[in-house]
Amino acid sequence: MAENPVRAAVMPEPGAPPEVRRYPLPPLEPGAILLKTLASEVCGTDVHLWHGRLAGVPYPLIPGHVSVGEVAAVHGEVHDVEGVPVRVGDTVTFLDVHGTCNACWYCLVAKAGTRCPYRKVYGVTMGADEPPGLSGGWSEFIYLKPGTKIVPLAKNVSPDAFIGAGCGLPTAVHAMELARIQLGDRVLVQGSGPVGLSCAALALLSGAGWVGVIGSPEKRLAVASAFGADWTTDVMETTVDERLRAVRDATRGYGADVVIEASGNPAAVPEGCQLARDNGRYVIVGQYTDNGDALINPHLLINKKHLTIQGCWGSDFSHVYRAMEVLSRFGRQVDWSALITRRYGLNDVAQALADVEARRVVKAVIIPD
Amino acid sequence: MAENPVRAAVMPEPGAPPEVRRYPLPPLEPGAILLKTLASEVCGTDVHLWHGRLAGVPYPLIPGHVSVGEVAAVHGEVHDVEGVPVRVGDTVTFLDVHGTCNACWYCLVAKAGTRCPYRKVYGVTMGADEPPGLSGGWSEFIYLKPGTKIVPLAKNVSPDAFIGAGCGLPTAVHAMELARIQLGDRVLVQGSGPVGLSCAALALLSGAGWVGVIGSPEKRLAVASAFGADWTTDVMETTVDERLRAVRDATRGYGADVVIEASGNPAAVPEGCQLARDNGRYVIVGQYTDNGDALINPHLLINKKHLTIQGCWGSDFSHVYRAMEVLSRFGRQVDWSALITRRYGLNDVAQALADVEARRVVKAVIIPD
Amino acid sequence: MAENPVRAAVMPEPGAPPEVRRYPLPPLEPGAILLKTLASEVCGTDVHLWHGRLAGVPYPLIPGHVSVGEVAAVHGEVHDVEGVPVRVGDTVTFLDVHGTCNACWYCLVAKAGTRCPYRKVYGVTMGADEPPGLSGGWSEFIYLKPGTKIVPLAKNVSPDAFIGAGCGLPTAVHAMELARIQLGDRVLVQGSGPVGLSCAALALLSGAGWVGVIGSPEKRLAVASAFGADWTTDVMETTVDERLRAVRDATRGYGADVVIEASGNPAAVPEGCQLARDNGRYVIVGQYTDNGDALINPHLLINKKHLTIQGCWGSDFSHVYRAMEVLSRFGRQVDWSALITRRYGLNDVAQALADVEARRVVKAVIIPD
Amino acid sequence: MAENPVRAAVMPEPGAPPEVRRYPLPPLEPGAILLKTLASEVCGTDVHLWHGRLAGVPYPLIPGHVSVGEVAAVHGEVHDVEGVPVRVGDTVTFLDVHGTCNACWYCLVAKAGTRCPYRKVYGVTMGADEPPGLSGGWSEFIYLKPGTKIVPLAKNVSPDAFIGAGCGLPTAVHAMELARIQLGDRVLVQGSGPVGLSCAALALLSGAGWVGVIGSPEKRLAVASAFGADWTTDVMETTVDERLRAVRDATRGYGADVVIEASGNPAAVPEGCQLARDNGRYVIVGQYTDNGDALINPHLLINKKHLTIQGCWGSDFSHVYRAMEVLSRFGRQVDWSALITRRYGLNDVAQALADVEARRVVKAVIIPD
Repeated sequence: MAENPVRAAVMPEPGAPPEVRRYPLPPLEPGAILLKTLASEVCGTDVHLWHGRLAGVPYPLIPGHVSVGEVAAVHGEVHDVEGVPVRVGDTVTFLDVHGTCNACWYCLVAKAGTRCPYRKVYGVTMGADEPPGLSGGWSEFIYLKPGTKIVPLAKNVSPDAFIGAGCGLPTAVHAMELARIQLGDRVLVQGSGPVGLSCAALALLSGAGWVGVIGSPEKRLAVASAFGADWTTDVMETTVDERLRAVRDATRGYGADVVIEASGNPAAVPEGCQLARDNGRYVIVGQYTDNGDALINPHLLINKKHLTIQGCWGSDFSHVYRAMEVLSRFGRQVDWSALITRRYGLNDVAQALADVEARRVVKAVIIPD
Repeated sequence: MAENPVRAAVMPEPGAPPEVRRYPLPPLEPGAILLKTLASEVCGTDVHLWHGRLAGVPYPLIPGHVSVGEVAAVHGEVHDVEGVPVRVGDTVTFLDVHGTCNACWYCLVAKAGTRCPYRKVYGVTMGADEPPGLSGGWSEFIYLKPGTKIVPLAKNVSPDAFIGAGCGLPTAVHAMELARIQLGDRVLVQGSGPVGLSCAALALLSGAGWVGVIGSPEKRLAVASAFGADWTTDVMETTVDERLRAVRDATRGYGADVVIEASGNPAAVPEGCQLARDNGRYVIVGQYTDNGDALINPHLLINKKHLTIQGCWGSDFSHVYRAMEVLSRFGRQVDWSALITRRYGLNDVAQALADVEARRVVKAVIIPD
Repeated sequence: MAENPVRAAVMPEPGAPPEVRRYPLPPLEPGAILLKTLASEVCGTDVHLWHGRLAGVPYPLIPGHVSVGEVAAVHGEVHDVEGVPVRVGDTVTFLDVHGTCNACWYCLVAKAGTRCPYRKVYGVTMGADEPPGLSGGWSEFIYLKPGTKIVPLAKNVSPDAFIGAGCGLPTAVHAMELARIQLGDRVLVQGSGPVGLSCAALALLSGAGWVGVIGSPEKRLAVASAFGADWTTDVMETTVDERLRAVRDATRGYGADVVIEASGNPAAVPEGCQLARDNGRYVIVGQYTDNGDALINPHLLINKKHLTIQGCWGSDFSHVYRAMEVLSRFGRQVDWSALITRRYGLNDVAQALADVEARRVVKAVIIPD
Repeated sequence: MAENPVRAAVMPEPGAPPEVRRYPLPPLEPGAILLKTLASEVCGTDVHLWHGRLAGVPYPLIPGHVSVGEVAAVHGEVHDVEGVPVRVGDTVTFLDVHGTCNACWYCLVAKAGTRCPYRKVYGVTMGADEPPGLSGGWSEFIYLKPGTKIVPLAKNVSPDAFIGAGCGLPTAVHAMELARIQLGDRVLVQGSGPVGLSCAALALLSGAGWVGVIGSPEKRLAVASAFGADWTTDVMETTVDERLRAVRDATRGYGADVVIEASGNPAAVPEGCQLARDNGRYVIVGQYTDNGDALINPHLLINKKHLTIQGCWGSDFSHVYRAMEVLSRFGRQVDWSALITRRYGLNDVAQALADVEARRVVKAVIIPD
């Protein structure tokens, strides 16, 4: 075998173009797993990594924080989260992208795992040159350290469906948990990216009586409709007042019982408060980077409306686990692989990042071959 | 008896100075009660009524929506909310200031009673010239229509304590219900008016581990300290950064588990988001009129913080009932009558309104004699 | 018109055979509605009424507490719960079967509307001889008193679907509200009567990952399967241990996340505790009459399991409203009219009661023609 | 130094009398701490350990799962849970008595940490002969392995107060979290052992409007009264009916809003259901061993009452943390050290166990000198 047989796409430093580098296969310590990568997601976070917008990231970096692979080797007896032994040849994902420390105040007292300051995320917080290496999914192989949580792909879930759902689906599962949708609720989703589309799908699967989506461009809204949304509108071609009137009309004048913000646009927030009914719930899950301030009237939009606003950050293991359940259960109703617009090889990750940034694709996937 | 023996303070029309008028004693229909007023609250809402800032108010108006009286007459068998007959001579309050319709979508489906558009409130939504009249507490007598919910004053609760607490205490009980304080929680209250002071008191009685109050002026903060607050600061003499640092220091660097906004200042809202810890709770109960917009960064202050923001509007019967329990139970620990700065006769209501507006008093009370 | 033109089926006194009597059409007071009955449900409660097992029921009684009718006359302007005027010819149901007093401690403080001791229910608490009469659905006409809450049938909901769902569907909506099902939850329903079948259907519509039903006889379980249940078993042909093993196998050894009891058998309760996983939820909604005690080990089945057990009594207006939403939204997925086994005329109500009691039918319906 | 200088009380095997043995001081690995024991609790669990009633316990065993000690040595930089370095001479407790695995389905998906099957508990699941040894508090020294969660005693909390509260206080904090007491709630506690007394104290500190305790013997009830309970009764000298009547009288006929079971007697459970009001909450926290079945009528006591029953098992880190906050905050109001009836040396642990078993003491404490 060649000395450095493993090819990986690497971000050398903030702002620099990604390149393909070669790495050795590290020896497996007891409890470790070597995964042959089948597919790895490109998500908006990777664009931020590319531009160096996240603090505390060790470069050079092999990105790729949600991936599916085939177990190539395992050292000793390793179990998945339900206690089943992991075998060579299994198709699995690894969910320690959500590894929390279980030792700090946020983990133990506040029970706010997604705010744990010591989270370790493959493809984000582990540098390519830190031993043992191979710590991201844009690589032919991924080295899973002992203790990494392994989840086998359900038999009827394809790698395409899993990666199409990507990290947006667990995030949406988290948002749904906080949205507490009841049978018949009218739900309005702001945003038609991967998180917004997953929120719309999950609202429908949760028994919502009506689901509307405000987004853009048209082809993303078409996916929302294909998922079953009752109403969509293009945010670029309508005014706030028009949207407010349309949602009021669709909700007998009350406004939506539940609004989910998944747009990333600060201006969506005051609009979302208006779209919600009095005493409704508003889950804000899309403001993942600092895009500035919003002007909000706390009397009219919060206090007098008796509104509940819930910020929703990230996802934890339970959300990934439930995401797998959803993919397995409802794969015939909702085709998450339809979110994948295009697949890219390791040499094409720069193109993939550019396409995601320009919203030319809904979901880009790296196939490291 | 004179033809029009009952003296009442009346707001003739929006913006006009209040004046004393005389009214007849209406005959009691079956189920009605005539109450001899002992004391009636002046609250911020009355200042708004005076200036004509509330829509749909029928003038001329006898204000006074929280009052205590002695039963002067009762027509037939009338029971209080627990089924005990009401007798002449009883000291009672009447809680249909919170009368909801129990027939609309907000009451029945949304279960958002305080957003019922058909609420009837003595002293606010019933005109002085609508029969049977005497529909507000700034009057020697109050006519309680059949179906008005009667609550006897607990034996160990004085009219002074009840009116000192006024409508601020039920509002604070409502805020506490939504704040869901747990034993040891660190609680920060923004605002030192009647609602803020009651929130501070109730947080302490609910087992909070630390309670801080940001308010003004000094004498109101002194009441907070007398109630047991661990820390107070004058909002006029400190900067946002100083307050943020002080609260962080008092909460081991995390921020407050629970923040209660009771100030009415829109700028308090982004500050409150910052004062709360990640995954904390923020109850906004003080934005009772439109004082304009606030600039809020939804990424930093809501989404990434995984913050829960809860608008809290008004109070319902259960909050008034619990307020009476609190007054009876904890009257020795917290002296709500201390909120009363000054008592005014019917001829002095203009002065009372001016003193409330200028914040010269914490609580003004009308004694109609 | 004849003097007493309206035919109605009447229970003359506890235990006596029902008979058809004739009543006059009462004059409509302002706000009242006269409904021409299209269909009225026979439910288990009617069997109890027949045998005189419920306290405080005024005989003679016209039963029928869930009915659909066509508006034959309306005195003045009457609005449905969303403020839309009710017109002659509309197909409506009336939901004051859940009329609460909105004045007692249970309504106002405990907010436990279904425990209000003053609830008024057409067909149950109003005697046939009390003016204005026609107070139950087993009659050609029903007199709806002013204030009765009117809900129009959604356009795509047939009277058959509404009555097939009957009062079991709102009860199941209530149970689901308390069950708080999350996406992917494994749900086990005990019982295959109207409530159990509706619970199974609603769990599926709420995003459950697996739904099992324990019931009897086979044809009811066939309905559960047609509704989409993943697994059913006949309680008469399996042992507790077999069922426990089967549910463990279907839930990866953990037990069900949520168990819903809708069987009426006290022995189901300790079994249900066992079927639930540690820290699961158990909603008991089927114990509607006193069928005796159950032997429960509080250490093994409650405390050590960290189990939540939730009693669920009756339903309120919000549940009926949501039931209508569900029928309208999901009528194509779940055919509630399939619960109707047989229709009976007014002369055949004795047969209908006997068939319900002997479980020869899932749902019996009275068509008063 | 002698070869085996550390004296410890050991249970050699199930059922055998405890004896004092000597152990070596193990060398400290990096991150480990050696604690000089100041005091260690004797709790009911220790009696069960003595009789061999718990499965999977490795004998010989050094009991003592809640202890306070002075840091005698620390290897390297070790931080407490809030990130503060631990220094020689600090008085601390160690809270990994609640160490969960953070890797299994119960920890990660069900989020039911106290049901984690892999919990490690000093003094219970670690054998005296397993290296490094000194794994329980009935010993002159305790060896704290790396990763053990350290909590410094608050400055104003004495070891006596902390051990007097013992593991009963975190358990009670957990029960309160689930009881969700609101201001003015009437709370009834069944049981007057350490858990019951702590529940009564915490209910009072949480703003309960009335707290009653049913227990025995008289001197324990006297502690309840000293803590502030409004009413107590001796369970040995009253009948169920008398207690039911007394609680109804104290709660205006409704029953208690919240009932907490902390007695360990299965017969308390149906009584507790009766003592609770309709739509009340019942937390069962005292059924820690299998004392047999209870006869419960699910119609009358659960379904028709619309009752919530919540099993509560163990406690997690957050409860211990909050317990420390409570001790620090409310030490002047509630003297938990008053629960300590007697202190015992290492030679007297047999006597301590016998006294606890016979209920001759409320709380026994081991002082290893």
